[in-house]
Amino acid sequence: MKVGFMGLGQMGRGMAGRLLDGGHELLVYNRTAAAAAPLQLRGARVAAAPLELLDTEVIISMLADDAAVESMCIAPGLIAGMQAGSLHVNMATVSLHMAKRLTQLHREAGSDYVAAPVFGRPAAAEKGQLDIIAGGAPAALMRCEPLFAAMGKHVFIAGDEPATANIVKIARNYMLAAAVESMGEAFALVRKSGVDVKAFYELVTTTSFSGTSYRNYGKLMVERNFDNASFTLRLGLKDVELALAAGGETQVPLPLAGVIREQHLGALNRGLGDKDWASLADYIAERAGLS
Amino acid sequence: MKVGFMGLGQMGRGMAGRLLDGGHELLVYNRTAAAAAPLQLRGARVAAAPLELLDTEVIISMLADDAAVESMCIAPGLIAGMQAGSLHVNMATVSLHMAKRLTQLHREAGSDYVAAPVFGRPAAAEKGQLDIIAGGAPAALMRCEPLFAAMGKHVFIAGDEPATANIVKIARNYMLAAAVESMGEAFALVRKSGVDVKAFYELVTTTSFSGTSYRNYGKLMVERNFDNASFTLRLGLKDVELALAAGGETQVPLPLAGVIREQHLGALNRGLGDKDWASLADYIAERAGLS
Amino acid sequence: MKVGFMGLGQMGRGMAGRLLDGGHELLVYNRTAAAAAPLQLRGARVAAAPLELLDTEVIISMLADDAAVESMCIAPGLIAGMQAGSLHVNMATVSLHMAKRLTQLHREAGSDYVAAPVFGRPAAAEKGQLDIIAGGAPAALMRCEPLFAAMGKHVFIAGDEPATANIVKIARNYMLAAAVESMGEAFALVRKSGVDVKAFYELVTTTSFSGTSYRNYGKLMVERNFDNASFTLRLGLKDVELALAAGGETQVPLPLAGVIREQHLGALNRGLGDKDWASLADYIAERAGLS
Amino acid sequence: MKVGFMGLGQMGRGMAGRLLDGGHELLVYNRTAAAAAPLQLRGARVAAAPLELLDTEVIISMLADDAAVESMCIAPGLIAGMQAGSLHVNMATVSLHMAKRLTQLHREAGSDYVAAPVFGRPAAAEKGQLDIIAGGAPAALMRCEPLFAAMGKHVFIAGDEPATANIVKIARNYMLAAAVESMGEAFALVRKSGVDVKAFYELVTTTSFSGTSYRNYGKLMVERNFDNASFTLRLGLKDVELALAAGGETQVPLPLAGVIREQHLGALNRGLGDKDWASLADYIAERAGLS
Repeated sequence: MKVGFMGLGQMGRGMAGRLLDGGHELLVYNRTAAAAAPLQLRGARVAAAPLELLDTEVIISMLADDAAVESMCIAPGLIAGMQAGSLHVNMATVSLHMAKRLTQLHREAGSDYVAAPVFGRPAAAEKGQLDIIAGGAPAALMRCEPLFAAMGKHVFIAGDEPATANIVKIARNYMLAAAVESMGEAFALVRKSGVDVKAFYELVTTTSFSGTSYRNYGKLMVERNFDNASFTLRLGLKDVELALAAGGETQVPLPLAGVIREQHLGALNRGLGDKDWASLADYIAERAGLS
Repeated sequence: MKVGFMGLGQMGRGMAGRLLDGGHELLVYNRTAAAAAPLQLRGARVAAAPLELLDTEVIISMLADDAAVESMCIAPGLIAGMQAGSLHVNMATVSLHMAKRLTQLHREAGSDYVAAPVFGRPAAAEKGQLDIIAGGAPAALMRCEPLFAAMGKHVFIAGDEPATANIVKIARNYMLAAAVESMGEAFALVRKSGVDVKAFYELVTTTSFSGTSYRNYGKLMVERNFDNASFTLRLGLKDVELALAAGGETQVPLPLAGVIREQHLGALNRGLGDKDWASLADYIAERAGLS
Repeated sequence: MKVGFMGLGQMGRGMAGRLLDGGHELLVYNRTAAAAAPLQLRGARVAAAPLELLDTEVIISMLADDAAVESMCIAPGLIAGMQAGSLHVNMATVSLHMAKRLTQLHREAGSDYVAAPVFGRPAAAEKGQLDIIAGGAPAALMRCEPLFAAMGKHVFIAGDEPATANIVKIARNYMLAAAVESMGEAFALVRKSGVDVKAFYELVTTTSFSGTSYRNYGKLMVERNFDNASFTLRLGLKDVELALAAGGETQVPLPLAGVIREQHLGALNRGLGDKDWASLADYIAERAGLS
Repeated sequence: MKVGFMGLGQMGRGMAGRLLDGGHELLVYNRTAAAAAPLQLRGARVAAAPLELLDTEVIISMLADDAAVESMCIAPGLIAGMQAGSLHVNMATVSLHMAKRLTQLHREAGSDYVAAPVFGRPAAAEKGQLDIIAGGAPAALMRCEPLFAAMGKHVFIAGDEPATANIVKIARNYMLAAAVESMGEAFALVRKSGVDVKAFYELVTTTSFSGTSYRNYGKLMVERNFDNASFTLRLGLKDVELALAAGGETQVPLPLAGVIREQHLGALNRGLGDKDWASLADYIAERAGLS
């Protein structure tokens, strides 16, 4: 397929590479052109401006946040310029508000829109092992199949409305935030009574908390391995704020979210913003008088 | 071994039965004598008062809460009357405060004390499949081995101080409370945006939240199967309050716990106290304007 | 002075009227022109578009929120078009983020900028009895004096940076939100134990909580007088969200704010959004099982 | 009147002195006898044991907490030994649970019981300037009138049930805790944006937050005058815990209380327990990255 791809960050690069491997014809765009070079060597063409992507069948975007979508997709007239029947697949994590706005803009343009945020780290993106959450009209989703097959190992259909995929992503990430915070609190509680945290970690992750969320973040907490962050505390905060914004937008009280956000703000003031999300446990421990 | 066993509730009955099966000589006591009858048929002797249990090598107690321990172990002088070298194994979930007080009382009496709260439902107790968290002096723990072997499938040693076992139990249950609340909030969030909750449940429990805590409580939430409660919301509240009390006792801030407790109080006022703990999701959904 | 005035809502109308009374020459603009008619009768000229206001010495804006400022001051090029030395006085409550952005835009345009949000109801605006919180360069503040004298009874200087005035307004409104919520909780607590709420109200407001914040909102709670809202619960929520946004922007944890926001969301689902802010007490009471 | 008085702490000494001044015949008891000496010089007789107080018409107790009431009034059999028609006036702040238990114990003994907690500092006690919150049967309250007249400047009748007085005291103190926390948060918010806290304090306490609660605690915050604590942070925490316990007892969710308690626990770990309650603002500021 002739694919336009916008946003070549850590995730986007891997995903675009998989599309090339899958035999798709790629026209890529990135704000800073250097990121496109390795893909160009592998056969991708490089666009000089977002609007050049209009000359493809499908535009995939993998941009950092709402502001990037605003400035690269909406402001330059990319969406407004899409032809009836053309398709935009937005695989980034955006707010529920932006998700609904994009749906509306595409409706007005007559173009198709699929939201398809992903779970997985850059390494998984490179190997085509992402979990993809997709929302959109069935026909549009069907057109995405070969692309999703190249990039992901599993596709989860959230609903006919694109925004359903975004809310699923947001809600699951919020569960993760609660898991990180509550595990951090539990660790502080047992440590303060003289229990070895590693032993506690083993107990809970070999019994009822055996999922990777607890295993992975708990391990980092036990080892205090926060410097090579694959997901920073600051990004964790962003996810909590997306949940709060979605709750505000749809009038769903999320009592834990408010508390978790404030905890993150305190942690930022202790210099943990660029450390691994698991370092929240250090802030929790510090508040508990543990060093 | 000649064992005194006090507290024949749903859990205690199964545990005492396992001890009989394991060939131990049992003298049982329960506030209401009727509960002892089936064990008597299987060979246990029945004591008329707590103090009769002093005529055994080990006293195991499995009482409902701090108040029951106060009125059945402390007030009648059972602990004060124990001989030097005799052993008390408290397998109930008590507060950190009570755990420390019992340790102190046994120290004064010259008797040994082991705290050994358990994870598992009545069915697991009956089959000797409990997870046992044990805390106490190594020599005392060693004496418990044949008893633990009869009742549990796994023994986790928390530390030399009995109270370490209690705090481990409390902290793990608190993690469970946070899991229930956060999953309930996430369910409300996606439902309000039109996502099928069952599909969301499948997604999260087949990816990063695959532990039984999420699988079991999430399933009950999806099915709204709250009437045959194997663990009631009221008991969940009790666990959160034990965590809060332990946090207060040891000066460990638990920001989520405060919020979770208030959520439970609201749920009680909606008549959910004796429903399954998972019914907290219904209260959360109701607050979100979902019916 | 030759003054441009933009935003003729309940507050703006009264403020503009005071300027006319004070002998100032007024050119007014409002999105819906009808609101301008009464002022026109009193001598104001009416502009057909925002940019016409460039032909004045001072532009005062009193718009509903950030979005209105965006679409009426920024998007049409009003700020960009201001001449060096001209002055914009923004008297609305905007976010800290918008406050800083406006400061920056004016710096780029070479124009002066003063933030001057107000405390007070429409009736006070009409009588020139507002409390004005002003932030900006001393020289710019001095130019505002005759205008402030016409509109307010007291001017509080927050600092040299315009945004200082906004944060003062936001922080004080946040204190109000906490007062409303905590009084609502206290009322529910005593009511549930059979205490007459009116008597409790009298006690606290005649002793240590004698300020108008408690007296006014408490009175409405006691009388359950929520229908003639002079300030709606939805506006209260907006204020809490401004505080949360400011806390996020400056990394200041506001643990109460998160909890208070969620409480408001729940209240919206009970149909209280357009009732008086004091009706939050009804939602709190309902959660407490009181009817 | 022939009055027994138990509990000669800072408050109790002043109150007992007022009763002597009012011409009442006093028999005092205190755990450590030294505290009774000054009153003995002024004419009071000193009891060697609690039960000696049974030989009076009215017993007033002013003990530190539930535990002191347990060990000095209940355990020694003081209440059980009271004659039908004799009266116990408990002026201390106890939990709602203890309040109800005392009511029940007196009902069983046939004696009368009045709860009459007070607002005011030791200096006010010495001058007979306390605010007294009284709950109990009208006839019993009437008997207290001459005593209250000697000790207080105002009596507030909470209801026929003694516990109504306790819940009023608890709820009002809880409002105070919320005021302290929210003002601390607001101070941190404005400080972080460069606003002078003293100026902000002046603004809020001269407008809608003019009550003494904000004036007194805010002043201490501004001056960072925490060392001569007239009410310590630890005592503030105790009050929040009484509110939480009362909420638990009566199923009233108090969302702010949970959050406020955790904040106090964190502050204890920073060594603020024995500082003035207002020092909570320092902990809040520290979490906000202010020094």
